[in-house]
Amino acid sequence: MTDGQVAPPPRLLMGPGPINVDPRVLRAMSAQLVGQFDPSMTTYMQETAELYRQVFRTANEATVLVDGTARAGVEAALVSLLRPGDRVVVPSFGRFGLLLREIAERCGAAVTTVEVPWGEVVPLDQIEAVVAEVEPKVVAVVHGDTSTTMLQPLDGLGDLCHRYGALLYADVTASLGGNPFEMDAWGLDAASAGLQKCLGGPPGSAPVSLSAAAVEVIDGRRSIEAGIADGGDETLAADARIRSNYLDLGMILDYWGPRRLNHHTEATSMLFAARECARLLLDEGIDTAVDRHRRHGAAMAAGLWALGLDLFGDPAHRMANVVAARIPDGVDGEAVRAELLARFGIEIGTSFGPLHGQVWRVGTMGYNARADAVLTTLAALEQVLRRAGVAVPPGAGVDAAVTVLDEDDGPGTP
Amino acid sequence: MTDGQVAPPPRLLMGPGPINVDPRVLRAMSAQLVGQFDPSMTTYMQETAELYRQVFRTANEATVLVDGTARAGVEAALVSLLRPGDRVVVPSFGRFGLLLREIAERCGAAVTTVEVPWGEVVPLDQIEAVVAEVEPKVVAVVHGDTSTTMLQPLDGLGDLCHRYGALLYADVTASLGGNPFEMDAWGLDAASAGLQKCLGGPPGSAPVSLSAAAVEVIDGRRSIEAGIADGGDETLAADARIRSNYLDLGMILDYWGPRRLNHHTEATSMLFAARECARLLLDEGIDTAVDRHRRHGAAMAAGLWALGLDLFGDPAHRMANVVAARIPDGVDGEAVRAELLARFGIEIGTSFGPLHGQVWRVGTMGYNARADAVLTTLAALEQVLRRAGVAVPPGAGVDAAVTVLDEDDGPGTP
Repeated sequence: MTDGQVAPPPRLLMGPGPINVDPRVLRAMSAQLVGQFDPSMTTYMQETAELYRQVFRTANEATVLVDGTARAGVEAALVSLLRPGDRVVVPSFGRFGLLLREIAERCGAAVTTVEVPWGEVVPLDQIEAVVAEVEPKVVAVVHGDTSTTMLQPLDGLGDLCHRYGALLYADVTASLGGNPFEMDAWGLDAASAGLQKCLGGPPGSAPVSLSAAAVEVIDGRRSIEAGIADGGDETLAADARIRSNYLDLGMILDYWGPRRLNHHTEATSMLFAARECARLLLDEGIDTAVDRHRRHGAAMAAGLWALGLDLFGDPAHRMANVVAARIPDGVDGEAVRAELLARFGIEIGTSFGPLHGQVWRVGTMGYNARADAVLTTLAALEQVLRRAGVAVPPGAGVDAAVTVLDEDDGPGTP
Repeated sequence: MTDGQVAPPPRLLMGPGPINVDPRVLRAMSAQLVGQFDPSMTTYMQETAELYRQVFRTANEATVLVDGTARAGVEAALVSLLRPGDRVVVPSFGRFGLLLREIAERCGAAVTTVEVPWGEVVPLDQIEAVVAEVEPKVVAVVHGDTSTTMLQPLDGLGDLCHRYGALLYADVTASLGGNPFEMDAWGLDAASAGLQKCLGGPPGSAPVSLSAAAVEVIDGRRSIEAGIADGGDETLAADARIRSNYLDLGMILDYWGPRRLNHHTEATSMLFAARECARLLLDEGIDTAVDRHRRHGAAMAAGLWALGLDLFGDPAHRMANVVAARIPDGVDGEAVRAELLARFGIEIGTSFGPLHGQVWRVGTMGYNARADAVLTTLAALEQVLRRAGVAVPPGAGVDAAVTVLDEDDGPGTP
């Protein structure tokens, strides 16, 4: 590579994300810009909000994009809801639970975590015990945590939180579109996502949705920028003011809503990307897409198992779109990843924290939740494992995956 | 427009930005993704940092992109430098000065503004008097404020700040690439920008550069995320911790630097866009690009004047790339803008605050700092003004602009 025209090497991205972008999304991003208050632009924003209502399965009017990567959406939700001193409960089962704690702490909140070992999810009764004791304003939880590949059950958690007067926020970045998710039916008050996992887009835009109850909290903190205000907002108490301007969801709602108050300049190309990601999902059908992730994820898991790799974490609560396989004893996990990338152009993921050096994380999501991607990855990994000195049964990985894909008779792994 | 494939109407964007994206940048954004720690990706990040060192005219190692629109870069700089209670002086001459005040206040800083009427810039001696009295940690100023079209002189301000022990931050979003700018020669400690003005890109990525002195301030506030840390960072005092995780430049530097500590997932498509914007500017040559903006901006200003429109603001301190023209008495400014957009596909800008309803703002920047864009805009505006009942001298706007472009004999306006 030189510093000439951008020319990334061809890669099959089978890690925990980002993954290859669907070509339809790349084409959408190559559209020319219009002005930020052009009638076509505001229509695109309205359409995109409506598309994400369908994606989140919500009737929430307050559905917008935050212009940043997934963690910008997380922080926007938390900094907009939390005042300094507010109590928050974070059920935590991996790296991204720790991130929720950290972001909430930086908002000045008093955070209580409910932790379980990596590889498990947090039982609802354990969450309830802590919520009953702490009486938090917000319960913040990750849905699918790619660091452990676990999928936290959320059904029932909304009701639980509401019984104790708490709002429920979930980070659904890694799960949305590839695992069942029901914002309204499960009683969520806030959710945020990203494009670069099951939605098949690039990182850089964070869909966020808020319930009426969440908007009510934010309404008590709304202000208007001095440079565009008619009057003053000086009456807002100091601790009511949202600590961020860029991530102030009250202002972002005023920009996306009928008032169209100027805030940031909407990242038009990323809006076009987000819109196309939603159209892809809804064209396929959410249930069909979720089932596609289930089948191809199961095929990948079966293939890895058949190659002799143990799978990590509670099988009852694995995400459909990413699986962690234990690195065999005596094998240099990073060397295997490097050879897979260098010789086959295939990327699988490393891992963090307590799992660092213990597992590879293999994704099957979005545009790459496809049979050829699964089988190519397994075939190449078999070769690289053998070259690394592992006794691999020839063809076993691909055979096992083909069996799952052809018969679709369940996850196929113990 | 339907809710089918994205198909924005053709527009010539001659407002204060965003403007039309250079086709080379759109092509760069259509490149497929690679993994975020792929050797090609980290090379692209290093190259992009080096390109922006040249764009900012700095030797600052700490030069990165913040994944958000221009105001994300502003907030990243301020929230990373300012602890609650820190004193800040903001010389303010328009909406974006007010925004600096607001963002600094949300960081918990004690802000003193030095305000002048819209249409003027802030004299250095006036800034010095306040800095001497307040002894701030940071002086934060906008370089070119599109709300007034004024360009604040920065040469000399760095030395002034340093004499009083203050750091100098400037928001150069609207000016960079179209007006002279010298980060190191002018002694800036922090600067942030966006792509959607003179750089010819889409909004959504914010180049930021920090001097060694600014990095030293941030070094005293660095922390590592719990999910990826080896040890703890629990010794950091509560008020030292940066209030944002997403906009924590210490963490972003650790991600872009040799440690490559995972933070957000870099918005790859926007990185490709930012890289191509810098390449476009450097291929043309910064001085050549600045001169192109001067010439075409002068032609536009001369054309508007010749159409009978008074120009707003101190002529000695106008930005090269955007000019404000007074709406003639009795003319509905928004109706003129709407007809120009609907019948000619040309967008010019409205205005904010005290100038709302008083002026149109006409941009000549980035990809659109071209003769055909200037002349087409003037020809169309002449027609629309005439249809609105204004007595416009036929052809005078285009003639005046052609004269400036052909002779290049100065700004051509009183």
